Amino acid sequence: MIKNDFYSKESIGAAYHFSLGDFQLSRGGSIKDAQLSYSLHGELNAEASNAILFPVMFSGTHSSLKQYIAAGLALDPEHYCIIVPDQLGNGVSSSPHNTPSINAMSDFPALDIADDVEAQYQLCQSLGITELALVTGWSMGAQQTLEWAVTHPEMVKRAAPIAGTAQCTPHDGLFIDVFTQALRSDPHWNNGNYLASSDVNEGLNRLATVFAMMGLSTKFYKQETWRNLDFSSLEEFISNFWQAWFAPMDANALLAMADKWKQGNCSRPYQNNLNTALKRITAKTSYIAFSEDMFIPVQDCLFEQKLITDSELFVIDSLWGHFAMMGLDKSDFSEINTILSNLLESPC
Amino acid sequence: MIKNDFYSKESIGAAYHFSLGDFQLSRGGSIKDAQLSYSLHGELNAEASNAILFPVMFSGTHSSLKQYIAAGLALDPEHYCIIVPDQLGNGVSSSPHNTPSINAMSDFPALDIADDVEAQYQLCQSLGITELALVTGWSMGAQQTLEWAVTHPEMVKRAAPIAGTAQCTPHDGLFIDVFTQALRSDPHWNNGNYLASSDVNEGLNRLATVFAMMGLSTKFYKQETWRNLDFSSLEEFISNFWQAWFAPMDANALLAMADKWKQGNCSRPYQNNLNTALKRITAKTSYIAFSEDMFIPVQDCLFEQKLITDSELFVIDSLWGHFAMMGLDKSDFSEINTILSNLLESPC
Repeated sequence: MIKNDFYSKESIGAAYHFSLGDFQLSRGGSIKDAQLSYSLHGELNAEASNAILFPVMFSGTHSSLKQYIAAGLALDPEHYCIIVPDQLGNGVSSSPHNTPSINAMSDFPALDIADDVEAQYQLCQSLGITELALVTGWSMGAQQTLEWAVTHPEMVKRAAPIAGTAQCTPHDGLFIDVFTQALRSDPHWNNGNYLASSDVNEGLNRLATVFAMMGLSTKFYKQETWRNLDFSSLEEFISNFWQAWFAPMDANALLAMADKWKQGNCSRPYQNNLNTALKRITAKTSYIAFSEDMFIPVQDCLFEQKLITDSELFVIDSLWGHFAMMGLDKSDFSEINTILSNLLESPC
Repeated sequence: MIKNDFYSKESIGAAYHFSLGDFQLSRGGSIKDAQLSYSLHGELNAEASNAILFPVMFSGTHSSLKQYIAAGLALDPEHYCIIVPDQLGNGVSSSPHNTPSINAMSDFPALDIADDVEAQYQLCQSLGITELALVTGWSMGAQQTLEWAVTHPEMVKRAAPIAGTAQCTPHDGLFIDVFTQALRSDPHWNNGNYLASSDVNEGLNRLATVFAMMGLSTKFYKQETWRNLDFSSLEEFISNFWQAWFAPMDANALLAMADKWKQGNCSRPYQNNLNTALKRITAKTSYIAFSEDMFIPVQDCLFEQKLITDSELFVIDSLWGHFAMMGLDKSDFSEINTILSNLLESPC
């Protein structure tokens, strides 16, 4: 167990902790005394019918997308009870660096998106939630969204997977190989048994450069759109945006998530038949894709959306590629918010 | 100077060697007793009007694209005298590992596309060539093609840049950063002063994975198009195609080319005004782009093609992305050959 202040409440805000006990994992093994962290925004109504689940993306925590949660927005805590669960392995919920003894660091077991859904399901049960007005998430958050809608169709009334797929594609798997190799190439990586998260700084910087290349769009760089964020050079943008994003994080947490991302496949319990799996979804589904997304391209979202019965695909045209979700472009933010708002207002 | 059999005539076929003497480089410094290697196909006619220059891509040698040179094809040695120059730093022409003493390994000087054009120009002079019926090349070969047409417009009658740009784009630069970081991350890299090319095998494998991700298309992997090459799994394709491609090469050669690629900018002598530079081109130009190319996307080719006076853009729809040029898909090969054939037949 090592200390990393990035994941502290001083850094990312307070979170609740739900105890999962000795938590069995779907790929085998278990986490002893597992913890699921989450933030809560708003109150559950008397009918327990206003819960929204907003699981997080790769490298995200419960505070990463808080800009989407505010009075007047679609995710309005005055009307909804919004739960943002930290995915297992993200550095806040049970993760390699914060887990004592037998599950620590390189001994942390392999995770699956199904484990996140099961952990979040147990949390919902403890909170008295039997239906979810909406499940939405971006990237790995979309993986969790789709796995939720497949696994518990009776609970999920509406779903909005954003730039993510229910089954990790082969090309996405290659992308994961590239950035995990970049991270593991750090001379201090030591098979995951480093002494401080910052020891692996070189690998984290390399991983950040891979994300810089794949996370935005060729047009973004050609047009120097980073100037909108007040950076004065490309080098400064890479260093102070991308490398600064990943630098404080824990390598083992990123690798635990990356492995889970690559294994992501909601059809595994259904003989790997994606059609069978996605046909289980009864939620009214607004599938969102970003026009210039290089690792979750529109066609991969379209492929899955077509298999979901009550669904529609929305393609947001943005220079920000996969990272349009960060909402750093006001128009992207507004479009995403409007799609979620319309979905929440639609009867089902 | 180290020995690497991959670059020997037994491995890649015989080449001619043209001595450049002490060759001054445009970014400063020089290569002592510099050598330009090239292969020659066909004979120069009495008017010296049938020469074609076919410079090579990143990681390529004079033998890499020999499938395009044969009787009956556009690049027909029965009608044309086709010169395939090895770019400086490619491991065959003067390069870090094959250069003696003061320019060896990490002391090899920085190169520029303009140096290739100057070296090839001196070769043409020595062969009595004052006009080129066609200059064509793929990727870094396209960089050389465009730099040729800008620098010596009076010599270049026709040009066919294929999936390359006259000015390296910022996103392309990031791609180069990612794969060079992957290579340099090798624990035996030692700042370029390793003892054998194979010492850097780990870094070469990582670089190969980056190319696997960026060199083809998401659709290629989704449709498992590698099965057309008789691979039975994705892992086998990565290992026996991509890693096998780069494994025998020399890391310093790849890095010398990569740096040159990133610096590529034919407008430098024209106050960095790309319009001024490309407007110098008088060659009839067929610009070829590949629909799914992830690092030389169609829009970057279109952007430059529009600045060339007598030009047309041809977009080839292929799952093979940037590597459509390898011609492993018969239809891609045929389309490229037809465009070159039509260009050669057109008067100018």
